[in-house]
Formats: sequence, structure tokens, C-alpha cells
Amino acid sequence: KLIELMEPLHAADIADLLEQINAFDRTRLIRLYDREFDGEILSELDEAIREEVIAVLTPQVLNQAIRDMDSDDVVDLVEDLEGDQQEAILEALEDADRVAVRQALGYPEYSAGRLMQREVVMAPEHWTVGEAIDFLRATPEEELPDQFYHIVIVDPRLHPVGNVTLGKLMRSKRATKLMDLKEETFRVIPAMQEESDVAYAFNQYHLISAPVVDDEGRLIGVITIDDAMAVLDEEHEEDILRLAGVGEGSLSDRVVDTTKQRLPWLAVNLVTAIAASLVIAQFEVALAQIVALAVLMPIVASMGGNAGTQSLTVAVRAIATKDLTGANVWRVIRREVLVGLINGLIFAVIMGIVGFIWFGSPQLGYVIATAMVINLVVAGLAGTVIPVILERVGVDPALASGAFVTTVTDVVGFFAFLGLAVLVLL
Amino acid sequence: KLIELMEPLHAADIADLLEQINAFDRTRLIRLYDREFDGEILSELDEAIREEVIAVLTPQVLNQAIRDMDSDDVVDLVEDLEGDQQEAILEALEDADRVAVRQALGYPEYSAGRLMQREVVMAPEHWTVGEAIDFLRATPEEELPDQFYHIVIVDPRLHPVGNVTLGKLMRSKRATKLMDLKEETFRVIPAMQEESDVAYAFNQYHLISAPVVDDEGRLIGVITIDDAMAVLDEEHEEDILRLAGVGEGSLSDRVVDTTKQRLPWLAVNLVTAIAASLVIAQFEVALAQIVALAVLMPIVASMGGNAGTQSLTVAVRAIATKDLTGANVWRVIRREVLVGLINGLIFAVIMGIVGFIWFGSPQLGYVIATAMVINLVVAGLAGTVIPVILERVGVDPALASGAFVTTVTDVVGFFAFLGLAVLVLL
Ligand SMILES: [Mg+2]
Ligand SMILES: [Mg+2]
Ligand SMILES: [Mg+2]
Ligand SMILES: [Mg+2]
Ligand SMILES: [Mg+2]
Ligand SMILES: [Mg+2]
Ligand SMILES: [Mg+2]
Ligand SMILES: [Mg+2]
Ligand SMILES: [Mg+2]
Ligand SMILES: [Mg+2]
Ligand SMILES: [Mg+2]
Ligand SMILES: [Mg+2]
Ligand SMILES: [Mg+2]
Repeated sequence: KLIELMEPLHAADIADLLEQINAFDRTRLIRLYDREFDGEILSELDEAIREEVIAVLTPQVLNQAIRDMDSDDVVDLVEDLEGDQQEAILEALEDADRVAVRQALGYPEYSAGRLMQREVVMAPEHWTVGEAIDFLRATPEEELPDQFYHIVIVDPRLHPVGNVTLGKLMRSKRATKLMDLKEETFRVIPAMQEESDVAYAFNQYHLISAPVVDDEGRLIGVITIDDAMAVLDEEHEEDILRLAGVGEGSLSDRVVDTTKQRLPWLAVNLVTAIAASLVIAQFEVALAQIVALAVLMPIVASMGGNAGTQSLTVAVRAIATKDLTGANVWRVIRREVLVGLINGLIFAVIMGIVGFIWFGSPQLGYVIATAMVINLVVAGLAGTVIPVILERVGVDPALASGAFVTTVTDVVGFFAFLGLAVLVLL
Repeated sequence: KLIELMEPLHAADIADLLEQINAFDRTRLIRLYDREFDGEILSELDEAIREEVIAVLTPQVLNQAIRDMDSDDVVDLVEDLEGDQQEAILEALEDADRVAVRQALGYPEYSAGRLMQREVVMAPEHWTVGEAIDFLRATPEEELPDQFYHIVIVDPRLHPVGNVTLGKLMRSKRATKLMDLKEETFRVIPAMQEESDVAYAFNQYHLISAPVVDDEGRLIGVITIDDAMAVLDEEHEEDILRLAGVGEGSLSDRVVDTTKQRLPWLAVNLVTAIAASLVIAQFEVALAQIVALAVLMPIVASMGGNAGTQSLTVAVRAIATKDLTGANVWRVIRREVLVGLINGLIFAVIMGIVGFIWFGSPQLGYVIATAMVINLVVAGLAGTVIPVILERVGVDPALASGAFVTTVTDVVGFFAFLGLAVLVLL
């Protein structure tokens, strides 16, 4: 009865439902699927519970689910499984599909080769519209992709030379040459290209599908925009989580796994926090004499940390969208420093007055104001330069910028404020 | 000659190039386009410099550029322009297009109505494959969308009842009923739906195009996946920038605009930092007696802030992907608190030892260790509960969570550490 209730749901929604209930209910629910389980549900499931679900399904049900899937979805499923689960699924495939999946698995993870599907509709250069249509009609349904939007024209060495949309094909006279109907925008994707660059190309050039080629430029598959969109979404998730110091992971992970993912970044933060404390420790004499310094000192560091995070997030995002390049990097750095300077001056005035009123000391107001300007300028500079340098040396700026930038703004913030205090107040 | 060099570039790349050079070079480059300017370049251009570019183009060139665009791209262009530039462009359109664009502009910003294109291919329920193909052949090129992937089947009241892919259409016999070829997955989008929900639906259900309907359920347009992908990208940008306290903005904005975008969040942060300082000020006596407290106190606050940011980022992202719902919110909260507890214990041990060795006081080690556990547990709790509550009361959790969570971890961090110090050490 529950199964009947779930019948109208899309596979992606069933997957979400399985993710959100607890492990016990999940096992019970899956046991109900003793006849048929839609392979698409498996594709949509979060990696963290896929293995669990696969383990519960009977081999017959699992094999049937796998056989109905497109080759790209099988690859996506199989690549994350352990050796024996992987082998079991590969065994269940028909020979041709197994070869295709194995070939895709031969390409590195996160490459276009992993993302592509083998099912492609192609036509030689000399074909006419009529020949293409007759070919499509003659091909059995199973040999065509589930969905396709273009016919790829290939030369005799199987190099793709153009795309024809089905819309154009259908509207044209049978005698028209396919080559005369080629789309203007046509991009070929090397199998070794990183999937993030594939997603970028689809978004930048509004591609709907694009042929994938091997080292020799021969057509070996096709990537469709729905899969590119999923990659774009994952890349964003990666960036947003990395910026916050959270490793790969999902809501379905167990407590132990989540703890492990969070720990490394907290450890890095502890080291940088201790470094900042070492700076403070240099000023113990001043702090013992003027307690107001201890009260105000976190404000300068905090404002610098926030301003630095603003700059670095803008820089990390702009690097990801390829909007921050060698051509405008100096302009962007200059802008961030200027913005830091102006905001620094504004908050220096405010904080100078607050400090003066609070502790009745104009010198203290002057010290915190000056430290504020210095730290916000440094924040703008570090927030832009650090991600740019990290990207140049091949480190993901989303992953490491935060630790570096906040270390800089903490150290500079404490040092400038306490150092100026020693000079002016003691 | 420069124009010739740029000829092979895609409109999106030309737009990027225009964005990355400085304003002076940009004006000179655009002046060279005195004959023809591809309307697509305008669509791809960043809002911040679109007006600038439009102002430089001659009316004739501009009008020609506009006339070649699909209605959704014209809407996207026109919606951000000032009144008179907007009117000028609307005037340049043919009557039918102007009506379509004005109707789309009647829908709220960021709604499906703004995102859709008017050009739809539809067919009545009773049509056969043959009738549909003849209709497509008979329709003049200009009246069809640039690209289309489905034929929308509508009932006599213009309600969409199904999609037929062009691939299926082409492979089927002329006598086959369109209704027999309907796709399994079919989603109709209300014109008033928010564009972020549209993007979610495309990504969740792997839609390629989806019909848009008005209040009465009548077909008024279609949204294609390339535009949904662009929205997904923008929504991500919004989230990532909001999490960092950066308002809407782009690399092309001027210094003054950027300063204004950054200022509000820094002002909020100043208020919360002062609140934290007020907590510290309550412990002036203790701080004056034991300088080590001033040295160590930022560490507890900083670790709490980081742990809280980890939790809140995971929660904000999960809310955006609809993975955090009423069904699993308690499980997620419990998990985050547990993770905070475990990491709190780990770093409590480390920091307890460091504090003991550094200042030679086991009591000080005990105080910082206990404060660490308290603050990391609070961080996990606040980092999950705050975004969930914000979302329930209709505030974007990406926008406001950070300020609340770090205020909580700062206040709790300072209060727990200094309060325990007073109890144990004085
Ligand atoms: Mg899911
Ligand atoms: Mg599929
Ligand atoms: Mg995968
Ligand atoms: Mg696919
Ligand atoms: Mg990746
Ligand atoms: Mg990345
Ligand atoms: Mg771009
Ligand atoms: Mg651009
Ligand atoms: Mg717009
Ligand atoms: Mg469009
Ligand atoms: Mg939005
Ligand atoms: Mg949002
Ligand atoms: Mg989901």
C-alpha cells in the first residue's frame, strides 16, 4: 500500500525520502520492493546510503534495475562502490554495456570520460536529412539513448565535425545535406577534461549536449546538459563547504564520519588561533596595565576577519567563474584595497568615538581607529592576493584561503592595536 | 582587424572580454562595432556594464541586435534598464514581440514568468505524428524558437497535458497519436513560481524544457534548461556571497558601489563584536589579575566561531537543496550537537595541555578545556537551529545566520571561559 502511495513520485523524490527517514525505516521500506526497484532511484541516492540500499536489495531486483540504466548512470553508481559490489553489478550488465562502463571507469574520477554516456547518435558527413531519418527509424529503440537532442556529424576517422538539432532535421527537406544544417556553436570535449570545466562550458556556451572525444579526437560518447547541471551543483556545494572548512560529506553521514570531516579544519584553526595568542602574549605588560586593551582587542581582529572573508569569497567565486584572470587581477586588488581603506576609515571614526566614550581616553580612541584602518586594508589585500596565489600554485583557493586570510587579519589586528597602544599609551 | 580576431569567439567570451578590460578600452572597442553587434553579447554582459555598452551603441545597431533575440533574452536585458533605455528598446521590437515582452515584465522579478520564452511549439491532443511534422515544416523559421526539444500537447482550453520529445516524434510512424508518445516525467510550471524553485525542479527531475502556465493553467511559454542552469548558478552565487556578508554585486562594480555592499554586514559585525566586548568588560577584575586570560580568551571564541560556521553552512546548503526538512531536522540537530561534543572533547584535551604547559597552571588548563567543550556544543546547536528558524520565519538563512551564530559563539565563548576562570582561579 505504501508502494502504491509512492508510485506517482519521481525517482529523485523517492531517493530524497529514503535519505530523510532513519536507517531502520529505510531497510523496512526497501524490503517492500521485492519485485521491482527503479534503477533511477539508485542514481539519485546519496552515496552515503547507496551501499546500504544495494546491500538490502535482492540480486535479481538489483540486476534488473541496473540493466535499465543509461551507461553514464551505471558508471556514476559503480564508481563509488567497493570492489565486490562493483564486480557484482558489472557482471549483471550485458556484454556491450559492461565494456562501455569499464572503458569509462578507465578515465580518471571527475573527468569528462566518467561523465559521458556511450549511447550516441552519429551520422557521416555525406548523409542527407532523409538518410538520417531513415537510420533513426531503422535503429531499434534499445540502441538509442533515452533522450537525445542532436545528431553528431563525424568524418571518416570518427572525428566530430558538427551538431544538427532534431528540430532543424525535422523541418528540412529530405535531400538537404546534414552539413548544411550544422549548429553555429559546437564544442568538442576531450575525455580527460575535468568535469568542472565541462560544467563551465555548458553554462558559458548554453550547450545542450556535446560530443566527447579520446586522445586521437575520435568520438567516444556524449555529455548532456542535465548531467552537466548536476556537476555544476556539486562544484558549488564543494566550494561552499570548503569555504566553511567542511570536507566532502552529506547529511546522511554518521556522527563519526562528520566529526572526522570537521576536525582537520578546526585543528588548522587552533594552530592559527594559538599563533594569534602568541602575538597577544608579547604585550602582557601593556595588557596588565590597561585592561581596556583586552576588552577592545577582539573587535579589531573580528572586523578584519569579516572584511577579509568578504574579499576572499568574492575572489574565490570570481576565480571559479573565470571572471578573475590575469587581465583584471591588478584592478581587482586595487579595488579591494580601496574598499578596505574607505570602510576602514568609516569604522575607524565610529570605533574611535565608541572607544573614547567608553573608556574616556582620546588616545585609546585614536589607537583603535588607526588599527582598524590598517587591518581592513590588509584584509582587502590578503583576501584577494591569497586566493589568487593559491590558484596559481594549484591549490583550490576555496579550500585554503580562509585559514590564511584570518590568520593574517588576526595577527595584524592584534599586533597593530596592541603595538600602537604600547607606543601611544605607555 | 581586432573585430576579425574576435569573430571566432562565442558571444559569452566576447562579453567576458568586455568585462575584463577597463572602461576606456571598452568604449573604444565597442565604437568599432559600427555595423553589427550580436544581441547575444548584450545578454551575456554583466548588468553593471550593460547600460554603459548600450549607451555607446548607435540606435540602429542596437535595434538590430535586439530584434534577433529570443523573447526571454530581451526580457532579461530590458528588466534591469532604466525607464528611457527600456522604452527605446521596447520601441525597437516588432509589435508581437513587444506584447510578449511587456507581458513577461508584468510578472514579478525572479518569477518563472520572467524566465520563460514566448516561442513555444504546441499541438492539440488529437494530432498525429504526421500532422505535427507537417505543421513544423509549414511554420516559417522566425516563428519557431531558436532551439526546442519538445512539442507541448495542449487540450482545447490550452492546458498542457504532456511533452513529446523530437527524438520520439521522428522515429514514430506518421499515424501514431502524439498522446501515445508522451514522456513519463512531465512538470508544469506556474508563472508565479520563484525562479529558484524552477531551477531546483530542473535539476531534481532532469527536465530539459517545461511549459509555463498562467493562473488559469493555460500555456503561456516555456522554460529551457540552459536558462534554468543559469539561475541555479546565480542562486549559488547569491548564497555563497550572502554567507560571507557580501551583497549582490560583481567584479565590474565601482569602488563606491562595492564599499556600499560590504558596509552593512561589517556594521552588523561591529555591533556583535562590541556586544562580545561588553561580556569581556564584565571580567575586568579577573583580566587585570591574570593576563593569561587575555592571551587565551580569543582561542575559545575563534574555535566556536569556526565550528558554528561549519554547522551553519551545512544547514544553509541542505535547506537550499531541500535535504533538511521537518522529517529529519531533529536527527540533524542531534548529530551536530554530538559532533560538537566529540570535537569539543578532542580540542579540550589538546588545549588543556597547551594551556597547562604554557602558563604552568593546571587550573587554567581545566578552565579552557571546559569552555572549549561548552562552546563547541553550543556552536553545533546554534549553527543548525538558527538557520532552520530563520527559514521558518521567511528570512534567507544564507543572509543572516552568520551574524547570529558568531554572536552566540563569541558571547558564550568569552563568558564560559572568563566566568569559569573567576570561579576556579580567583
Ligand atoms: Mg537526493
Ligand atoms: Mg538517464
Ligand atoms: Mg559519482
Ligand atoms: Mg545522463
Ligand atoms: Mg569536482
Ligand atoms: Mg572547485
Ligand atoms: Mg563568465
Ligand atoms: Mg560574463
Ligand atoms: Mg535579469
Ligand atoms: Mg533562453
Ligand atoms: Mg534569486
Ligand atoms: Mg537563495
Ligand atoms: Mg535532493
